[in-house]
Amino acid sequence: MDADGEKSKAKIRKIYVTGSKADIRVPMKEVELSRPKGSNGNGTPASVRLYDTSGPYTDPAAVIDYSKGLPPIRRPWTTGRGPGPVTQMHYARAGIVTPEMEFIAIREGCTPEFVREEVARGRAIIPANIHHPESEPMIIGRNFLVKINANIGNSAVASSVEEEVEKMTWAIRWGADTVMDLSTGKNIHETREWIIRNSPVPVGTVPIYQALEKTGGKAEDLTWEMYRDTLVEQAEQGVDYFTIHAGVLLRYVPLTARRKTGIVSRGGSILAKWCLAHHEENFLYAHFGEICEIMKAYDVSFSLGDGLRPGSVADANDAAQFAELETLGELTRLAWDQDCQVMIEGPGHVPMHLIKVNVEKQMALCHEAPFYTLGPLTTDIAPGYDHITSAIGAAMIGWYGTAMLCYVTPKEHLGLPDKEDVKAGVIAYKIAAHAADLAKGHPGAKAWDDALSEARFEFRWEDQFNLSLDPDTAKSFHDETLPQDGAKLAHFCSMCGPQFCSMEITNTVRDYAAKLQMDDQAAIQRGMSDKSEEFRRQGSELYVKT
Amino acid sequence: MDADGEKSKAKIRKIYVTGSKADIRVPMKEVELSRPKGSNGNGTPASVRLYDTSGPYTDPAAVIDYSKGLPPIRRPWTTGRGPGPVTQMHYARAGIVTPEMEFIAIREGCTPEFVREEVARGRAIIPANIHHPESEPMIIGRNFLVKINANIGNSAVASSVEEEVEKMTWAIRWGADTVMDLSTGKNIHETREWIIRNSPVPVGTVPIYQALEKTGGKAEDLTWEMYRDTLVEQAEQGVDYFTIHAGVLLRYVPLTARRKTGIVSRGGSILAKWCLAHHEENFLYAHFGEICEIMKAYDVSFSLGDGLRPGSVADANDAAQFAELETLGELTRLAWDQDCQVMIEGPGHVPMHLIKVNVEKQMALCHEAPFYTLGPLTTDIAPGYDHITSAIGAAMIGWYGTAMLCYVTPKEHLGLPDKEDVKAGVIAYKIAAHAADLAKGHPGAKAWDDALSEARFEFRWEDQFNLSLDPDTAKSFHDETLPQDGAKLAHFCSMCGPQFCSMEITNTVRDYAAKLQMDDQAAIQRGMSDKSEEFRRQGSELYVKT
Repeated sequence: MDADGEKSKAKIRKIYVTGSKADIRVPMKEVELSRPKGSNGNGTPASVRLYDTSGPYTDPAAVIDYSKGLPPIRRPWTTGRGPGPVTQMHYARAGIVTPEMEFIAIREGCTPEFVREEVARGRAIIPANIHHPESEPMIIGRNFLVKINANIGNSAVASSVEEEVEKMTWAIRWGADTVMDLSTGKNIHETREWIIRNSPVPVGTVPIYQALEKTGGKAEDLTWEMYRDTLVEQAEQGVDYFTIHAGVLLRYVPLTARRKTGIVSRGGSILAKWCLAHHEENFLYAHFGEICEIMKAYDVSFSLGDGLRPGSVADANDAAQFAELETLGELTRLAWDQDCQVMIEGPGHVPMHLIKVNVEKQMALCHEAPFYTLGPLTTDIAPGYDHITSAIGAAMIGWYGTAMLCYVTPKEHLGLPDKEDVKAGVIAYKIAAHAADLAKGHPGAKAWDDALSEARFEFRWEDQFNLSLDPDTAKSFHDETLPQDGAKLAHFCSMCGPQFCSMEITNTVRDYAAKLQMDDQAAIQRGMSDKSEEFRRQGSELYVKT
Repeated sequence: MDADGEKSKAKIRKIYVTGSKADIRVPMKEVELSRPKGSNGNGTPASVRLYDTSGPYTDPAAVIDYSKGLPPIRRPWTTGRGPGPVTQMHYARAGIVTPEMEFIAIREGCTPEFVREEVARGRAIIPANIHHPESEPMIIGRNFLVKINANIGNSAVASSVEEEVEKMTWAIRWGADTVMDLSTGKNIHETREWIIRNSPVPVGTVPIYQALEKTGGKAEDLTWEMYRDTLVEQAEQGVDYFTIHAGVLLRYVPLTARRKTGIVSRGGSILAKWCLAHHEENFLYAHFGEICEIMKAYDVSFSLGDGLRPGSVADANDAAQFAELETLGELTRLAWDQDCQVMIEGPGHVPMHLIKVNVEKQMALCHEAPFYTLGPLTTDIAPGYDHITSAIGAAMIGWYGTAMLCYVTPKEHLGLPDKEDVKAGVIAYKIAAHAADLAKGHPGAKAWDDALSEARFEFRWEDQFNLSLDPDTAKSFHDETLPQDGAKLAHFCSMCGPQFCSMEITNTVRDYAAKLQMDDQAAIQRGMSDKSEEFRRQGSELYVKT
């Protein structure tokens, strides 16, 4: 390959890796690297393949029409499933490797058998409603890459259907692994239909929001029947996971009375209100068996909601939160008995020193079902920057074993996120998730960092941009200071200028060793004296114009 | 106080707390809170006082004139100090509580004696050159609030003197505790003079940058005499701490040869080059005793530089880095023998799982001298967002015991930070530092979060904005969705709208308990049955227009 002759060719490409059957086509983002100039370039790969959540939207060959939706790639696999349990856990326990599992194995770089084992054990879930054939299978579990979720959805106050579909495609473009449609107000059904039909990633919802619309917003008028009908309606549409606040028990509600910030989960507060009004046990808890029946008929995964999560660092890890967690563990067992897939939602607001125990308790009480946390925010003092206050907590909780991180945008606590906020939240959480993968020693995670750092060190600017989480921003920031095209080839950057560049100095040291035809190691052993003299003799100018 | 009658009065005020003498005036930012409406409001303080780094620039009574500089508030204290050691450590060891120590005790909320003890022990430093009388004393040590540094300074490629002074006042406005002037190229002396004379926070530099200007950028032409003269020149001007890369020993340089990213510290690479060219030991190491003589005559603190810090996660915690750290520990002892104050610089790029051992090694090898780290970045894949990749690492390393965090801006690795980048970096690092304070259980840190969370829970929007790290951004984000003035008094926000608001539901639950003249605790004990019935009887409308 001749790098100069290829300038017109895209260096970032969408590719598909095919599995055992032609219809298992796993999308990846391939970044072609340039041939290192002026370096020995040993070990530099020709390209790097990255996990790709963006769906057909980044495939130049795809024809996109929101009104038609995406191609139903999973239909051949789901046709003929059922009646009876159709869950991935069901098949996994029966020893069957589904096409979804094989797809995921290629995506994650492991064996299909490992995927099957983790799903069978309940330590990972594959949210994949049989009525959402447009989705590209993915897995949530702590022995896989850490995933992130982006919340979208209109509220009573603002935004339109089109806007929400655009937010979804935008969120997955930057790396969201799932999206949750948290719409309230009018058009809930229609908004969701558009999102699901056009989403290549699993879609989650909180069904109680829609159920509540039926009562005109009165929590105490909710009935099991209303809720059940909502579940069926959404399962039919293809929602892949439901947040269900079945752990908000009547006896736990008073535990929140002395909190600084009471109950901050919308679902949690709706159910708390219902429990108090009726003085009855939470109807989601009471009817949990019937809920399982619905879930397993479509393979909707449970996301057992933490309705009593803390809303401030003051309330973190308190009795209410942990009491609910214990109940979620009990419900996990019940769901697993029905072959239902389960993940567990977690906080919220937690100072750093209380994060680890949160994960440890969750693993112990919920039998290692995947943990799915909102942040957590590590301090309350920075409204407007809660993507950062929470990315700190998210990275840590991911490292400790959380499987999916629900993003927080800069607008958290203040207003509704627009497109730029969605991007800021997704990028902050991709950083957190990847930092967690690195710290966990996930095989393959480090290769990405290494490829970028090598590109940086060898002044391969275009490679550095292309390997970035956000190539557009990286390139535009560079160009603000050094806009000339030539600067992309320069062996220095604007931070130091040509005279001071430390990276260039190291290169010079290495090149010098190479010129002397000495292995670095031999140089170390022989001592530095010869080297020193020759270095001076040959002159030690650093900056050679290229 | 009548909240309505006071609308014109500023709710955020600069105040001064006076010490044992009239000239010890400690600045603080006082946020006046509104009287909670519709809540019992017990425990809500009338105001909250916050640590204030912004100097006279936020004092309406101050007359600012860059050409005249700030008032030399420390002059009465420093006059008469010397000859001989004039360091805070010298006085601390002699049992003397200086006015600087008393100032700091008021600022940090501890006793002057505690400040003296920590400085005497070397576990904290007070960077306070006797020739920088404009500075407001502050302390760096792990038993105090975690501090942050902002780097400013022009480079060979861009920016002007005025711009750099503006960046300094901007950085401290958002919370920078110290600034480092990293100028290179022309006008180094003049830029520094303007910055110091106008800076109420300690100013640090890397003197080798200026020394190198004298050789036209040729590292191998540097001499001890050139460097010594630079130290004296800068000490005379009032620089409060010097980064000195005295630990880059000749024998450590080859340890970097097999790294992914070699030597990335400018200072480190300059000295490595010098060592190789001369095949002699680093002249900063060789002349360390003479350097101490200069430092103690002005009370310039050492910031022993980590010239061999890793430039990528691949190179973290390697032999080169830890070898240098061991030497920095040895030099710490030598400096302490001369009553010189010392902190130790640290990395850089470190994945999360390797951060803790970094701090533990530093404490052990450097005898608990304060640690001062750059980030660290927890992943390399996000150029353009390195304020976030590094805020994660900074928060964690602060929690583990690092005393000061050097900020990273979004432009890191790409270009020179402008004003907005400086602000983004400072805010991200204030978040990291405060999250660390919280996790360390620093007395007083949590009060800030609690005040803000209570304001949030009670829908005191203006209080929430005023207590924010960045009130402007918090308010503007809120107003994007709900611009009406009335929304600032509304008992709901744009995320949920009036029907769904979970905070309001909790308030209702509490108000209800109060109406029944029952203590929450009594309600818990009596069971919930009466409450439930009355709740329904009284109606349970949530949203009451205010």
